[in-house]
Amino acid sequence: MATTGSEAVLPIREGEKKPSSEQQIDPWDVQAGHDENGNALAFDYAAISQKWATKLIDDALLERFERLTGHKPHRWLRRGLFFSHRDFDRILDRYEAGEPFFLYTGRGPSSDALHLGHTIPFSFTKWLQDVFDVPLVIMLTDDEKALFKEKLTFEDTHKFALQNAKDIIACGFDLKKTFIYSDLEYISGHFLMNVWEFSKLVTFNQVRGAFGFNESTNIGRIMFPAVQCVAAFATSYPEIWADEPAKERTKALAKIPCLIPMAIDQDPYFRLVRDNAHRMKNPSPKPALIHSKFLTALQGAGGKMSASDPNSAIFMADTPNQVKASPRCPIHQNKINKHAFSGGRETLEEHRELGGIPEIDVAFQYLSYFEDDDEKLKKIEDGYRSGELLTGELKKMAIELIQGYVKDFQARRKEVTDDLLKQYMTPRKLEWKGNPNPKPKESKKEKAAQA
Amino acid sequence: MATTGSEAVLPIREGEKKPSSEQQIDPWDVQAGHDENGNALAFDYAAISQKWATKLIDDALLERFERLTGHKPHRWLRRGLFFSHRDFDRILDRYEAGEPFFLYTGRGPSSDALHLGHTIPFSFTKWLQDVFDVPLVIMLTDDEKALFKEKLTFEDTHKFALQNAKDIIACGFDLKKTFIYSDLEYISGHFLMNVWEFSKLVTFNQVRGAFGFNESTNIGRIMFPAVQCVAAFATSYPEIWADEPAKERTKALAKIPCLIPMAIDQDPYFRLVRDNAHRMKNPSPKPALIHSKFLTALQGAGGKMSASDPNSAIFMADTPNQVKASPRCPIHQNKINKHAFSGGRETLEEHRELGGIPEIDVAFQYLSYFEDDDEKLKKIEDGYRSGELLTGELKKMAIELIQGYVKDFQARRKEVTDDLLKQYMTPRKLEWKGNPNPKPKESKKEKAAQA
Repeated sequence: MATTGSEAVLPIREGEKKPSSEQQIDPWDVQAGHDENGNALAFDYAAISQKWATKLIDDALLERFERLTGHKPHRWLRRGLFFSHRDFDRILDRYEAGEPFFLYTGRGPSSDALHLGHTIPFSFTKWLQDVFDVPLVIMLTDDEKALFKEKLTFEDTHKFALQNAKDIIACGFDLKKTFIYSDLEYISGHFLMNVWEFSKLVTFNQVRGAFGFNESTNIGRIMFPAVQCVAAFATSYPEIWADEPAKERTKALAKIPCLIPMAIDQDPYFRLVRDNAHRMKNPSPKPALIHSKFLTALQGAGGKMSASDPNSAIFMADTPNQVKASPRCPIHQNKINKHAFSGGRETLEEHRELGGIPEIDVAFQYLSYFEDDDEKLKKIEDGYRSGELLTGELKKMAIELIQGYVKDFQARRKEVTDDLLKQYMTPRKLEWKGNPNPKPKESKKEKAAQA
Repeated sequence: MATTGSEAVLPIREGEKKPSSEQQIDPWDVQAGHDENGNALAFDYAAISQKWATKLIDDALLERFERLTGHKPHRWLRRGLFFSHRDFDRILDRYEAGEPFFLYTGRGPSSDALHLGHTIPFSFTKWLQDVFDVPLVIMLTDDEKALFKEKLTFEDTHKFALQNAKDIIACGFDLKKTFIYSDLEYISGHFLMNVWEFSKLVTFNQVRGAFGFNESTNIGRIMFPAVQCVAAFATSYPEIWADEPAKERTKALAKIPCLIPMAIDQDPYFRLVRDNAHRMKNPSPKPALIHSKFLTALQGAGGKMSASDPNSAIFMADTPNQVKASPRCPIHQNKINKHAFSGGRETLEEHRELGGIPEIDVAFQYLSYFEDDDEKLKKIEDGYRSGELLTGELKKMAIELIQGYVKDFQARRKEVTDDLLKQYMTPRKLEWKGNPNPKPKESKKEKAAQA
């Protein structure tokens, strides 16, 4: 979906033609392309899905989900924010059969506070955890962020990781079922053994292809994909499954797959693990993935919210007034880039006559992501399209919804003490209904086989 | 020093000329070159030292060592088995000034038992530990060996590491001053943070150049040099220095240098750390190195003892008869490759008339490495050169010395229980006279600076 109107987001001088460019997506850089006039384009998610051979989430899959779980799909599934998957259907098979799986997601701590966009995958993952009643591991890649950001030290990113963990906890995760870890703190033992074993399966050529590395890339960056990949193996966390055999990497444990909710730019990591999981000494199944779009619509086309650009995001620590009035609020950026971000018309008369265009309206996009009531949203859409509702009214509704979302978050965030943080970050046996707790017999056999 | 005589070690067919080749030395492959007739050449250690810009250990250095420590230099220093160094003089400066340093050495556990050659650096390091009274860390690179040997799993090499550690302990190290660790077990926390920090300083191009990697090299191998390098930093082992601040990487700790006794083929690793140590957040001094030759002379020219070739080595578990009679004993290989391995003459008459050549005689090389008495050795040398002593007599003396060395080892080895192994391998505060135990004040300041 291209932006419209005479004010281009990336303006070019008259007569000067820029060659059009394609969108560029990898785990560290996300750029929508621009057309020959230099106008930023929206991401073409169908094209990404086709190019990377993922499956689009369709009605049949969502119907099956609802039938099996008894839960209406989350509005972010219903409205296509989580739009694509790999093997999510196989996770549903396991759920149906009562077989174990776990959830894994993560965050690269590049700053000390989460913005609204960061919380989306976590809020969604919390919902998945409630629906499936399965254990969840959350990886904070403080190692990665210091490797990839020249100016950040490992001390910086580790400090960010602990701060971010508090924000993540405030997304509502169940302590009993959730283990949050900083790579720099937690990785050792079986996790590290998995890292080395995986690293033996992957060549420089392969990571160069997958991540765009070159000969001047530092060796830490070259190695890091192995770390993020093996986080998808149940054997990397022997502690969470059982007190005994907490010290073992067993074949039984290796067979428990995970489901990873994540933004689509992280997909290259998990293609690598999906290609190689069966080659491990204790072969693992391919992890299943659910991909989200970026919160593009919340910012205007062609970028994603960035914590390092303070003007591009609503932070979760913002006051209601900051959410409403700050230039950081993309909704308010409508005022500046009217044609880029609003679906409204130039004048009230025009708007009443022609109606608004919800598809390109930032406020409407916010409403679609934060208003859970389908009927109410439909009424708003129809009202806007008919010209009955004005852009300002949509903005007001959207701001109120976000203020509510942020307020709820902040209430939970207040309760997150250092002690509670420590509890979430302590490697320990998690508790959930279907804990498969591999039988001691099996673990002894495995032990003998490994000796 | 070339082999002599009509039987070439690497025979070639008549009329077939092989191009001569240069010696090849890197941490995983050691090959002496061969001449244009296909004869294996001895390693040219002076050339290695010159090429890599190390300093040869000379009499002045050894005299200073003796003056400062009150100890006669070890026979392996006096007789040039440890022949080269980097900054050993600066370690002596520190010793003279009463400033702390530590010893670091290691082993790649590629098999479950040590051979004679493996024990040389450890016996030498034990002697250094006694002389200097400093802490020692011994790294078992079970991670490396599995990465570089296609057929070994990480479970295999970890098992070897624990077995090898028992043999290493039997070299006589002082428990109070020695910490032995398996990479796969120990690495985490500050060690791993150092690994990542170091890996950020080094590019693929740099390790490609230093270690001969290419684009098909697995990413674990590419990363591994960072692991071996940061083992030379005192901050990788906060536990050994003090109970408090055991959890800190401090600037003060980082300034404690190490001395690394090792075979010269490992030098590329430490050139890398010497080039980059000052670039760490807590800058470290360049580690000092003492290089040994390979035990070439103990096997014949052009190779080093190899645990993976059972016929090339005397194992430390061998019985006295095995030492004497086994085809594994290089001394006995004289019988097979007379001209390659013996300095004796074809007939008794010839030998009495011309005398033997100690420089190319394997038995004499053994004597020079295991007979501590300089006068006694001189007499043997003179007697052999004059033709008075026969090759068989030298063999007998050498075998007795080795039997004694192996017997002493085995007596100590019997005492190494699983419990004792565990004590050596437990991260803990070590005890030695000059423990600098950074003062709490400093550590708090560091803590504040890091926060």
